[in-house]
Amino acid sequence: MEFKISKGLIQELEQLIQNKNDQQLEVLLNDMHHADIAEILDELDFNEATYIFKVLDSEKTAEILLELEDDLRENILSRLSPKEIAEELDELETNDAADIIAELSQDLKAEVISELQDVEHAKDIVDLLRYDEDTAGGIMHKELVKVNENWNVLTCVKEMRIQAENISRVHSIYVVDDEDRLKGRLSLKDLLTTSSRTPINDVYIRKLNSVKVDTEDVEVARIMQKYDLEAIPVVDELGRLVGRITIDDIVDVIKDEADQDYQLAAGISQDVEADDSIFEHTKARLPWLVLALLGGFISVKVLGLFEGAMLQHGNLFFFTPLIAAMAGNVGVQSSAIIVQGLANNTLSGSLFNRLVKEVSLSLLNGLILATILFLGSHFLLDVEMIIGVIICVALISVIIIASLIGTFIPLLLDKFGIDPALATGPFITTSNDICGILIYFSIAKMILGF
Amino acid sequence: MEFKISKGLIQELEQLIQNKNDQQLEVLLNDMHHADIAEILDELDFNEATYIFKVLDSEKTAEILLELEDDLRENILSRLSPKEIAEELDELETNDAADIIAELSQDLKAEVISELQDVEHAKDIVDLLRYDEDTAGGIMHKELVKVNENWNVLTCVKEMRIQAENISRVHSIYVVDDEDRLKGRLSLKDLLTTSSRTPINDVYIRKLNSVKVDTEDVEVARIMQKYDLEAIPVVDELGRLVGRITIDDIVDVIKDEADQDYQLAAGISQDVEADDSIFEHTKARLPWLVLALLGGFISVKVLGLFEGAMLQHGNLFFFTPLIAAMAGNVGVQSSAIIVQGLANNTLSGSLFNRLVKEVSLSLLNGLILATILFLGSHFLLDVEMIIGVIICVALISVIIIASLIGTFIPLLLDKFGIDPALATGPFITTSNDICGILIYFSIAKMILGF
Repeated sequence: MEFKISKGLIQELEQLIQNKNDQQLEVLLNDMHHADIAEILDELDFNEATYIFKVLDSEKTAEILLELEDDLRENILSRLSPKEIAEELDELETNDAADIIAELSQDLKAEVISELQDVEHAKDIVDLLRYDEDTAGGIMHKELVKVNENWNVLTCVKEMRIQAENISRVHSIYVVDDEDRLKGRLSLKDLLTTSSRTPINDVYIRKLNSVKVDTEDVEVARIMQKYDLEAIPVVDELGRLVGRITIDDIVDVIKDEADQDYQLAAGISQDVEADDSIFEHTKARLPWLVLALLGGFISVKVLGLFEGAMLQHGNLFFFTPLIAAMAGNVGVQSSAIIVQGLANNTLSGSLFNRLVKEVSLSLLNGLILATILFLGSHFLLDVEMIIGVIICVALISVIIIASLIGTFIPLLLDKFGIDPALATGPFITTSNDICGILIYFSIAKMILGF
Repeated sequence: MEFKISKGLIQELEQLIQNKNDQQLEVLLNDMHHADIAEILDELDFNEATYIFKVLDSEKTAEILLELEDDLRENILSRLSPKEIAEELDELETNDAADIIAELSQDLKAEVISELQDVEHAKDIVDLLRYDEDTAGGIMHKELVKVNENWNVLTCVKEMRIQAENISRVHSIYVVDDEDRLKGRLSLKDLLTTSSRTPINDVYIRKLNSVKVDTEDVEVARIMQKYDLEAIPVVDELGRLVGRITIDDIVDVIKDEADQDYQLAAGISQDVEADDSIFEHTKARLPWLVLALLGGFISVKVLGLFEGAMLQHGNLFFFTPLIAAMAGNVGVQSSAIIVQGLANNTLSGSLFNRLVKEVSLSLLNGLILATILFLGSHFLLDVEMIIGVIICVALISVIIIASLIGTFIPLLLDKFGIDPALATGPFITTSNDICGILIYFSIAKMILGF
């Protein structure tokens, strides 16, 4: 059953904080899951949240820290001494600790690291800090179970017991050679059914997926999904086993990647959230609006070219937003399909076939829409027949061109190693607006001859 | 290391198929992962793919079937007899088998089920077919390990060995009472360190997250992510343990949900893929384009209201696409943030605060953009000062209104239980286009008095 925050609970907590009733606070919160407590702290004001944080013991608060919204975490950390932060980090898994350290200022970072009590743990954390956060190295844990290929089953089981103590989920036992190079994996079942003097060399499975430290995180996600893996080992340039990535790390990668693509499609960069500051939102949104505005300048210029039509055929101008909107919408549809196909690796067949398909699709949609438009312009909007014909021809042409642009641009960006998701949203709508208007008036000019 | 399909490999396979060299085909493919073989089959033509499928044994082909693109799977299944399909399904886990059966025609479904060899397995599959595919029941497996609270540790270990045989990943051992009601879970560690005559009742953990069969799949995903669970038990209305959901099932749910939101934002319903038929694409895309077209009719009508301005201030009409585009872009940005906030459950604070924030943000963005527009209109586009003032005032007003509409509509839809993602994309751009144009010309009319 899931926990829901009630107003009553929040009021009760606020009351207890006001009365400095630490004992009752502990009783109330100690039984709760850390993710629930984090949710509660996010609802309280900053001083109250900090108060509760200091009441609870570090085993619990370390986990809570990971679940807090960025702002609150930053705030709380700023009220802790380097030693107190180090105490929290000592409780965490290496990659979670490294993620939190990475958010600290340069000076504080060094101080916190020097205060870490567990030397092995500290070494692992420092090691992880070296990797780019978007790579396998950046998301891997140091916690894993490994055994030497030259050991026998008995040594192996003993060593495993020691190593497994700090690991919540074992998943796999990795086999390495004397140089720590990854050789394969052991199945727990085989291990338990083999005589204890058998050398590991005789029982381990040589076939094993692994990724390099510098493999991109989205690539790791793709591999783990494709092969349905719950964990994958990470090796360095020399093939040495340096870490492990589990499926729950990948869930975050998939979620982040999807959120980012969604935002890009909406003209938002930088991964902002609803509760981020106005300044951060402006930074993420304004560039795309400026781009759209500059595109707007061009559309004004283009329309200016056809000023001559205004006297005789002024109502042509009434249709510009309609044509521009249709071009924009069609372009976004086409590009979204391509961006998603690229992301999910489901695009097959040649570029030519793809373009032929888009054109056929656009022709079909265009004919249906043009019929509606023709009837609508005649019966609802009362325009002359010739204008009706012009907007219909323009609509079909615009839809075809817009879908080609929408298909082609993300493919082109991808070819040059640029994120194709950049092509969706404002970029496609703006360029299609301009093209759409240009095509529309050119056709009108050809037919009416102004 | 990941597998990459080479042209050479495809040619080799095609050659072997032509020569009917089944033995060599088996040698070549037997060592490959089923996900890789599925990828290869997707690249071959249909007859070749079917040929290979029939060469391999059903243990392998069953897994391949799951990984194929929908079209190819449908095609291959149509060439198999009910008995052959049943043989494939006997190899699969219950929920994978149920997913495939669900795709079959009504008649074939019954025939295939009657051909299933393993009666228990068949019962489980039929049971799963009852549930809606978007619920916990629809994504759960029947495979799990459960023990009775009244057993002792020894019985328990014996039973577990039998049950675990068919399960690739144990994750958790669930404890039930005599009525099969879920009571808690057992940790493997406790089980192994407890004397064998201890009753389970003394050692099991009573605290346990579970979901109901009719809980929505996205809700299950949220709970598992929040509490960082690798598996969660599913109970029926009476609290009886009926299945289990593992994190890899959830990865698919998250991915599908994200893809769907992304497509809705781009004006595509029904979850199509690049390689689906033109007809399916039309069905998914056309409704949104018709909506946009009808919105376009309204914008034509609105512009017609201001026909009087055409003689004296014709260049006002040159700016309509610019204003409409800005309104659309701002609206999409605002709504995307809200849709994502709702999906990720990160919206906090009151509606009023949110609207105040959006207005401040829009005012900031609007002032910057208006400055650029004013300078641009003066130096680049050469319009009169008064027109420059009008479009700048209009731009700021339009941006504020558009962002309010973009914020408000998804929140409203969500309140009425409608997917807020429907509000993004064409719906928001179209309504904001119309509002934008109306505001723009109303301001112009007020100032210029035409």
